[in-house]
Amino acid sequence: MSFSEEQVIEVLAQVFASEDPRIILGIGDDAALVKGAAQQILTTDVAVEGVHFRTEWSSAYEIGKRIAAANVADVLSMNGNCDYLLVAATLTGNEDLDWIRDLAQGIADQAKEAGAVVVGGDLARSQTLSIAITAVGHAEKPILRSGAVAGDSIFLSSLTGWSAAGLAILTKDLSLSGANAARALNEYRAPTLNFRVDFASATSMSDVSDSVITQGRQMAKSSGVRFEFDVNAIESAEGFGEISELAHELGVNALDLILQGGEDHVLLATGRDLPGIRIGSAVEGSGVAVVKDGGEIKMAPVAWSHF
Amino acid sequence: MSFSEEQVIEVLAQVFASEDPRIILGIGDDAALVKGAAQQILTTDVAVEGVHFRTEWSSAYEIGKRIAAANVADVLSMNGNCDYLLVAATLTGNEDLDWIRDLAQGIADQAKEAGAVVVGGDLARSQTLSIAITAVGHAEKPILRSGAVAGDSIFLSSLTGWSAAGLAILTKDLSLSGANAARALNEYRAPTLNFRVDFASATSMSDVSDSVITQGRQMAKSSGVRFEFDVNAIESAEGFGEISELAHELGVNALDLILQGGEDHVLLATGRDLPGIRIGSAVEGSGVAVVKDGGEIKMAPVAWSHF
Repeated sequence: MSFSEEQVIEVLAQVFASEDPRIILGIGDDAALVKGAAQQILTTDVAVEGVHFRTEWSSAYEIGKRIAAANVADVLSMNGNCDYLLVAATLTGNEDLDWIRDLAQGIADQAKEAGAVVVGGDLARSQTLSIAITAVGHAEKPILRSGAVAGDSIFLSSLTGWSAAGLAILTKDLSLSGANAARALNEYRAPTLNFRVDFASATSMSDVSDSVITQGRQMAKSSGVRFEFDVNAIESAEGFGEISELAHELGVNALDLILQGGEDHVLLATGRDLPGIRIGSAVEGSGVAVVKDGGEIKMAPVAWSHF
Repeated sequence: MSFSEEQVIEVLAQVFASEDPRIILGIGDDAALVKGAAQQILTTDVAVEGVHFRTEWSSAYEIGKRIAAANVADVLSMNGNCDYLLVAATLTGNEDLDWIRDLAQGIADQAKEAGAVVVGGDLARSQTLSIAITAVGHAEKPILRSGAVAGDSIFLSSLTGWSAAGLAILTKDLSLSGANAARALNEYRAPTLNFRVDFASATSMSDVSDSVITQGRQMAKSSGVRFEFDVNAIESAEGFGEISELAHELGVNALDLILQGGEDHVLLATGRDLPGIRIGSAVEGSGVAVVKDGGEIKMAPVAWSHF
C-alpha cells in the first residue's frame, strides 16, 4: 500500500462522520456508545472477493452498497429499523485509497438510505479481500419467520430474479443491451432495497437472500405450514413481462430466475391483503410446492451458484 | 470440506445454544432479537490467519478465546458489561468439523466468562481464514479515553508484556521451560481478561491492545494531558520480577515488553487511588514520556510486529 494506516483511518473518519443524535460517542474510542432500544435486532454478514463479489465486475462503491444492503435487509425482514452498522474489512494491500474511500461511501450511502449510521469498524491485512458488516436495529413489533398460518397469502415486496439474471450475464460474459439487462446488472451489483412496501401486518417475513424457494421452505418449516407458489399468480404479476423477456435472451426459464435465483434482498411475507406482489398461499401441510392451474409442477433444482 | 454446511450450522447451533433470558430470539431467523439497553456499546474486531494468529501456534480453542477476548476487552474498557457477540468467519475448507467446533467453543467460553452470549453469525468460504467478531454491551457510566486530568495517577489492571513475550518465544522458536515461559505462551495464545480489578471510578480508560505507550499516547491526546510512565513504580510493581526474568531469558529489555508490547488486553486507566498497578501520572502538557529517578529516559521504538 502506498499510504499509511493513519491515512486510511482519516479517510474513513471523514466518510463516516455523523452528527446523528443517536450516537453518544462515535468512531475513535475503544468502542462506540449509542442509544439502544428495548428490542434490539442484531445480524452479521460477511462477503468475500471471488465468492460474493468480484472487483472486476463491480465498483468499490457498488460492493459497499451491496454488502450493506444484505445486512440492512436482514433487519427490515424482522419489521425492524436499522440504526447502526459496524464494518470489519480485510484488505490485501492492492486497493488504493480512492478504492477504499468509494467502498466506505457505498456502505455509508446504503446506511443513510436505511436511516442508519456507521459507528465502528476494524481493518486488517489479509491475502483475501473480505468485508464483514454487523447491523444493529430495533423493532417494536418484530415479525419472525415462524408466524405464517394456513390461509395466508404469500407476497413479495417486488419481483425477484433480477440479481440472478445479472449474475448470469456476467458469468456468461454476455454483452446484452437494453433496459432489462441494465436493471439486472444493477440489481446484481447493488441491489435496491424496497423501503416503501408496508409489510407491518405480515404474519411472517424473511429476506430473500438465497432464493424464494429456499427461504419459503425455511419459513414453511418454522411456521408448520406448506408454502404453495402459484405460477398463474406469478405470471400475471407486475414486472413478469420484463424478467421473462430477459430470461428468454439468457436462454433460461423465467420461473427458475424468480423462484430459484438469489441475492435479491426482496422481502418475502405472508398475511392477508398485504401490498406487494401475491405469489401463492400458505396451506396446511409441510414443505414447498409450485402449482399451476391447480396442479403441482416439478422444478428441477437450479444452482445459481456464485460463480 | 468433508462435511456439509448444514453439519457446520448444526454444530454451531449446539455450541452456541443458550437459554439466556436476554435473548428473545436466537440463531435461526434473519437476525437475532435481544433485550437492549439505554446506552449500548458496539465494537468490532477482525483477526486474520498469518497476521493475528497462526494455526500452528495456537489451537482452534485458543484462537476462538483470544479473538473473543479482544472484543470483550473493548467493552470492559468502556466500563461496560458485554452482553452479546456475533461472529462472521471465513473458512478455507482445510478446517475439519472438530476444529470449527473447538473454535466456536473458545468463543462461547470467553463469552460466558464475560457474561455474554453468542447470538448470531455468518460463515463464508475464502482463501484466507479470518474471524470477525462484533461485541454488543451496555454501560450505565461509560468511561472514555478523554477523561484524564492532570494530577491523576495511571494504573494497569495487571502488568503487561506477557503476550509480547509469548510471541517472541514463538517467533524465535525458543524452547524455554518454566512457569514464566508457560504463562507468556498462554497469554499470547488466549489472554486472560481481569474481571476483578474495579476501575469504575477511573477518569479515563482504554484496553491495551497495541501497547501501553501507544494507548497512553491516544488517551493523553484525547484528554489533553501528558502521560508520564514511571520506571521506578513499574520496577517495584507486583509481578515485575517474573516478567524481568523472562525478558532476560529472551535477551530483551523488560521495559520494552511492558511498555511497548501489545495484545495483552489489560486495562489502562487514570484516576485517584484506583486498585491495580500504579505505573505513572497524568500531568499538564501533551504526549507521553518515560521517567526514572525524576528524569526522562528515551526508549527506542520496538516494533513487536505480529510476525
